[in-house]
Amino acid sequence: MRALGFDPVDEARRHWAGHGWADAAPGMAAVTSVFRAQQIYLGRIDRVLRPLGLTFARYEVLMLLSFSRTGSLPLNKVGARLQVHPTSVTNAVDRLEAEGLIERRAHPTDRRTTLAEIQPAGRALAQQATEAVNQAVFTDPLLDLEQTDALVELLTGLRRANGDFE
Amino acid sequence: MRALGFDPVDEARRHWAGHGWADAAPGMAAVTSVFRAQQIYLGRIDRVLRPLGLTFARYEVLMLLSFSRTGSLPLNKVGARLQVHPTSVTNAVDRLEAEGLIERRAHPTDRRTTLAEIQPAGRALAQQATEAVNQAVFTDPLLDLEQTDALVELLTGLRRANGDFE
Repeated sequence: MRALGFDPVDEARRHWAGHGWADAAPGMAAVTSVFRAQQIYLGRIDRVLRPLGLTFARYEVLMLLSFSRTGSLPLNKVGARLQVHPTSVTNAVDRLEAEGLIERRAHPTDRRTTLAEIQPAGRALAQQATEAVNQAVFTDPLLDLEQTDALVELLTGLRRANGDFE
Repeated sequence: MRALGFDPVDEARRHWAGHGWADAAPGMAAVTSVFRAQQIYLGRIDRVLRPLGLTFARYEVLMLLSFSRTGSLPLNKVGARLQVHPTSVTNAVDRLEAEGLIERRAHPTDRRTTLAEIQPAGRALAQQATEAVNQAVFTDPLLDLEQTDALVELLTGLRRANGDFE
């Protein structure tokens, strides 16, 4: 995509102020900036994960399981931790299971609960994917360290204000 | 969704550092925070736009056309300004046209170019949608004004570093 000769978010902000919506202009700029930043980061991550047969959603499930003490978690806990809808978890788990990266197991004591358990191939792919994503994206988030920490702090406040965690 | 008793981004950051990926941990936290912030904002906007029959992508096209001097823009310029893929523009324009909110027109001097032109019903819906989104989301971005401006400034740097604009 070619670079624009102006900042489109700043232009939208001027339009907002010019139409009498000055009190909404900063928030509009924040929301559209977050949307564009998400596209930028997701594009960079997809370019690394696609050759490995992974999406970011499936990568997140693998990492969450790999970090768990037993290598397995109840499906509803996976959704709660990743803050995604149960159907998204089901889709990711279906695909990861079909590829032999995880397995569904019955919970040993609670019949109503299904566990997702990471398999050796899943651990190996999670490791490989993490090395690739770390190198290509996470060690270079397009901001310096001070700015990166400032961004995380601001968005932590936003997530808390949304009621994500207490 | 129930609030977690801990911050999941902060927990992931500790896992990253604990696995020897300390140099990638701040960027991982920034990227996952941006992804979650995007979900939060998009969810809030969708709740307002869905009853009006709009998605955010279609709303953005309507606003861009409403801001243009003639109420119309070439389709390729719509994509460039919104920094989205041509197929996304085509999908949004197809749907908006089917609902009588915009019309495709031949460019008066360049036969190869198609214009999208906003219609009176499109202007009215854009105005209604903006009032609703301003009130529900943009005037309350879950951050105070100083934090909102700081967030925009950080993400402006990120977008510039990505080559979005010069």
